[in-house]
Amino acid sequence: MTETYTLHEDPRSGNCYKIKLTAALLGIPLAIQQYDIMRGETRTPEFLASINPNGRIPVLQITDGEERFLPESNAACWYLASGSQLIPGDRYEQANMLRWMFFEQYNHEPNVATLRFWLYFVGEANLSKEQRGLIMAKRVAGEAALQLMDQHLATRDFMAYGAVTLADIALFAYTHVAEEGGFGLGDYPNIRSWIARIEALPNFVPMA
Amino acid sequence: MTETYTLHEDPRSGNCYKIKLTAALLGIPLAIQQYDIMRGETRTPEFLASINPNGRIPVLQITDGEERFLPESNAACWYLASGSQLIPGDRYEQANMLRWMFFEQYNHEPNVATLRFWLYFVGEANLSKEQRGLIMAKRVAGEAALQLMDQHLATRDFMAYGAVTLADIALFAYTHVAEEGGFGLGDYPNIRSWIARIEALPNFVPMA
Repeated sequence: MTETYTLHEDPRSGNCYKIKLTAALLGIPLAIQQYDIMRGETRTPEFLASINPNGRIPVLQITDGEERFLPESNAACWYLASGSQLIPGDRYEQANMLRWMFFEQYNHEPNVATLRFWLYFVGEANLSKEQRGLIMAKRVAGEAALQLMDQHLATRDFMAYGAVTLADIALFAYTHVAEEGGFGLGDYPNIRSWIARIEALPNFVPMA
Repeated sequence: MTETYTLHEDPRSGNCYKIKLTAALLGIPLAIQQYDIMRGETRTPEFLASINPNGRIPVLQITDGEERFLPESNAACWYLASGSQLIPGDRYEQANMLRWMFFEQYNHEPNVATLRFWLYFVGEANLSKEQRGLIMAKRVAGEAALQLMDQHLATRDFMAYGAVTLADIALFAYTHVAEEGGFGLGDYPNIRSWIARIEALPNFVPMA
């Protein structure tokens, strides 16, 4: 029996887009089940009980006789890309790719993605006082993450390796729409060239 | 030439401890280079230029004719444990292990570890107004992460698999000292049993 995949997602989410881009680059078909995170559709009792007790998307559903549910965008990308050229085979290169994927979740996403969500989708006027008080710290930390990427890309075509890997896909997702969160990519020429390289990959698909 | 390893670390950091515990369980010798993060010793121009441009520890230095520097605790654990029984060989189990390691960096560490650092090492009186304003949100999010773990461990001995993996090591580091951040483990009986199982592993080493 061939495995099939269903992605539980919200098309506005860059974390969901990572999985769609990985699947597209590898030619893997994905069925899509959409949720509206703004309406709490991933916090219902049904979703928590059967899809993800953490109440978050994306979740990759793997169907193969049984049903398995894999949360965490970067873990789902790892699953789909396992054994492909998107994951280097060399021990150090593999760990170095994961290094940038953990950097993405710790240093980049909570700042670059969160400000995009707050300012572009929720709207500054609708933020809580606590959220508004965090904008400046997230701005500074997000710029630091982008600056580190730009400096790293000054001497490399891709983040972790001589060719595209999951590290590029993970970081591309929210970097290429960082301007929606008020980050100016004009200051980061190496990031801009890297974005163009990724958009030129065979089978590339844009974010919805 | 045999590879040798130097861990650039602060012994108070759970992220550094993850790597020491991984190495101990696998019988891998690690040289130690200590820094005091409270004195900014990982933000000096020398550190940024030669160890980690992100200004953070841990960094695993791999010496094998050349010198390579691998930041991000979970990536360093992956490197050391590559090919060992701490990483399941099965494709799904491997992705599921990484799922919990990404959960650790996104949902657990920024709350459970940060409150421990602020309350136990910095001291509440020395926090900035912004930091003090974040304590409640981090308390709620940290309890949610612990609750999810406890619920998950109700029907399992280990987080990702039938035996200990890097997911357990990553989550153990800050969970077993969560009370230093004001989290009461009394509410989480399954976590307490899991902590006892990890502490009983052959070659286990405690945090400094």
